[in-house]
Amino acid sequence: MPRAKGPRSTRDRMVDSAAVLLREYGTAATTIDAVLAHSSAPRGSVYHHFPGGRRELLAAAVTRAGGTLADRLHDYVDTADSPSAVLRRFASLWRSRLVATDYRSGCPLLAVAVDHPADEPELADLVRTIIGRWTDELRGGLVDQGVPAARAATLAALVLASVEGAVVLCRVEGDATPLDAVVAELEPLLESAARQTLP
Amino acid sequence: MPRAKGPRSTRDRMVDSAAVLLREYGTAATTIDAVLAHSSAPRGSVYHHFPGGRRELLAAAVTRAGGTLADRLHDYVDTADSPSAVLRRFASLWRSRLVATDYRSGCPLLAVAVDHPADEPELADLVRTIIGRWTDELRGGLVDQGVPAARAATLAALVLASVEGAVVLCRVEGDATPLDAVVAELEPLLESAARQTLP
Repeated sequence: MPRAKGPRSTRDRMVDSAAVLLREYGTAATTIDAVLAHSSAPRGSVYHHFPGGRRELLAAAVTRAGGTLADRLHDYVDTADSPSAVLRRFASLWRSRLVATDYRSGCPLLAVAVDHPADEPELADLVRTIIGRWTDELRGGLVDQGVPAARAATLAALVLASVEGAVVLCRVEGDATPLDAVVAELEPLLESAARQTLP
Repeated sequence: MPRAKGPRSTRDRMVDSAAVLLREYGTAATTIDAVLAHSSAPRGSVYHHFPGGRRELLAAAVTRAGGTLADRLHDYVDTADSPSAVLRRFASLWRSRLVATDYRSGCPLLAVAVDHPADEPELADLVRTIIGRWTDELRGGLVDQGVPAARAATLAALVLASVEGAVVLCRVEGDATPLDAVVAELEPLLESAARQTLP
């Protein structure tokens, strides 16, 4: 849903900055100081907007970035005209962001998942819930396109795992080849899964 | 090559501890203090064994963990009897480690790649080189099993991306389902790629 135009609030800018920092530098680098510097927000706004401090700010960034992606996936599923259409648009979203940032920007949820020790269970739960939404959208989209339900579940896991993994490999290599390879291999696999009947 | 038995050196223990911390907690948590605590090494050993400090210790951990995995992949390729045999053993290695650590342990190179800003180019180069070795082993193994060279390159990227991504998803979910889904979907894909003739 498009948001009303207008200057973004200080809170919004801080949340967006936290997401950018998570994408490019990881969780540890996403400190209150780094977010204030990136968003040009006044220091006093931290405990006004985020009384829970850094933990609340990280949770807000993960919720917003993860929710935005879930909404986009929902939109891709709604308008897909083939089993591989959602994959193509999903991969294309990541590819554009990689290219636009010279291969610096990755997934903020993966950054939290990799960095985040088990002693922050609420943030871990949040990441699990959001990644569950992404998987559900991908699986539902495949079912809508005629893929049998059990197969749609394994394929949804494969699509999410391979795109997430490829985004990291693209950052490592400074090149989109791994993501392009994933799309090239998975497109025909998804198409053939929709053509097969149940065993 | 099996190493000679005997008590591990202080340096060895520190490198292994750094790799364990990278796997479970990420790059930022892998500090000199955390490595000393985990390895029970005396503080004086840091600058004796790692005159370059934390950066040198991280590089040693990435080199050892990455080299060990490259050697294993080489071994899997050497003894593979089908195109999907390397994938099965590669995934099984990750799966065993996930299960043994209650889904806490991931890939130390991915942890560095996600967390590591571009202002540490030497560590980034090291990660790129080691991941290049893994990809080369996977690709070579597929070629050995009859997959055409161009296809082997895209499939090697898909295997590495999807296994790396699935390991993160397994940690998020506390469950091996994503990795099992990747194996279930990629096994027949790799087998069929070896049966196809060149276009």
